[in-house]
Amino acid sequence: MFNKDNLTHIINEFNGSFNLVSDPKNRHFNGKEIAGYIDHTLLKPDAVISEIITLCNESKKYGFASVCINPSYVDLCTKLLFGSTVKVCTVIGFPFGANETATKIDEAELAITSGATEIDMVLNIGKLKDNEQDDVQTEILSISELCHKNNVLLKVIIETSLLKKEEIVLASLLALNAKADFVKTSTGFSKGGATIQDVALMKFTVGNGAKIKASGGIRSYEDAVLMIINGASRIGTSSGINIVEKSASQSDY
Amino acid sequence: MFNKDNLTHIINEFNGSFNLVSDPKNRHFNGKEIAGYIDHTLLKPDAVISEIITLCNESKKYGFASVCINPSYVDLCTKLLFGSTVKVCTVIGFPFGANETATKIDEAELAITSGATEIDMVLNIGKLKDNEQDDVQTEILSISELCHKNNVLLKVIIETSLLKKEEIVLASLLALNAKADFVKTSTGFSKGGATIQDVALMKFTVGNGAKIKASGGIRSYEDAVLMIINGASRIGTSSGINIVEKSASQSDY
Repeated sequence: MFNKDNLTHIINEFNGSFNLVSDPKNRHFNGKEIAGYIDHTLLKPDAVISEIITLCNESKKYGFASVCINPSYVDLCTKLLFGSTVKVCTVIGFPFGANETATKIDEAELAITSGATEIDMVLNIGKLKDNEQDDVQTEILSISELCHKNNVLLKVIIETSLLKKEEIVLASLLALNAKADFVKTSTGFSKGGATIQDVALMKFTVGNGAKIKASGGIRSYEDAVLMIINGASRIGTSSGINIVEKSASQSDY
Repeated sequence: MFNKDNLTHIINEFNGSFNLVSDPKNRHFNGKEIAGYIDHTLLKPDAVISEIITLCNESKKYGFASVCINPSYVDLCTKLLFGSTVKVCTVIGFPFGANETATKIDEAELAITSGATEIDMVLNIGKLKDNEQDDVQTEILSISELCHKNNVLLKVIIETSLLKKEEIVLASLLALNAKADFVKTSTGFSKGGATIQDVALMKFTVGNGAKIKASGGIRSYEDAVLMIINGASRIGTSSGINIVEKSASQSDY
């Protein structure tokens, strides 16, 4: 159990020691490099098959890390991406996270069976706010054990825009304890998306124990680079092509 | 299978024969009457236990039809509302509907086991748009059979703000064929909510075969009455208390 003093202490340390980088002047990524950070994302509820096919084709062409799609398209994407390096990433308990734990486990099992190799789950935000630390961590742990048994990567979405700073730290620690591979800022469907401050705080909190995925509102090459410099190892965006084409070097394509 | 001509024909008939009522002058509801139409709703992902307790207490006090809450609060609401007339309504595949069918069935089964007596499920919007009529209808039918076997009411959310008029008619017909008790306009978390035009079109489409639940953006007593006059039998709103207190007669409380 983390108490309020633990969380405040981490925030004070962060505020006292961490230098946000708000100008990416010395960091350059060419198209292939930046593409490797990107989960090429299409999660709107009215996405149709033709859009999913385009998403998969673009991902192969540009070399994105994954396609990130809703569960009912995992099967299709697995077929479309067979033999490529692009991973199939899907979302669990999305975008509210207010499901029963058993439902999230069932949904994750089915997604893995259908071919997903990366899972972005939403933690239970209400329970986090009610300080039900055991419930939140146990739920994440159930899914992380399921994922790791199947060589699947787990990212835990904490929805930073709905959280106080202490809750961002707590959520990151619970995800870390539950062996999540990534802590992810946002669903992209709430009040706000990733900020460099939140990304840096999350990275400061988890250290080398987990990676950070920044998502929500990241639309430009400059946005993406700032997120990476401040601690993100993965970027969730539906603007991947724009980001790659505005990258420091386009000569690779 | 419904073809485009079937759907256009219904829309033409509707446009030619149906008179929208846009002024509720002659229809009055007292507080108790209007409360009986309302699903008292709290679906935001960061809702906490204290808010859920308040919601249940308010529902008993005012006599709302149900509380409408996320699945992880079904158990709590079932306990809090035990012995009252207020139903426990929860949402399945919410708010995107882009889950696998098996996940929605698992989630509905669990909700019913935990005490839900009304289920509001989101249909698969992408599949509706791709004209996968069999898939959409079969999914709804699986849930409606499960519900009816357990004396649970099923409402199917079609998310009108993302649909063309033909798609609203098609979705309503598929829900009707699949024996849904209600067709419901909106999740409340998309581009828009219920309009009286859409409610009237849905009612015209399903006739007496199903009821209509209007939801999303209904905040005043006048809004609620207009929805009812134009075909709604249930109102989903988080403004239930405001609606009751502004009703034609407050003398009942």
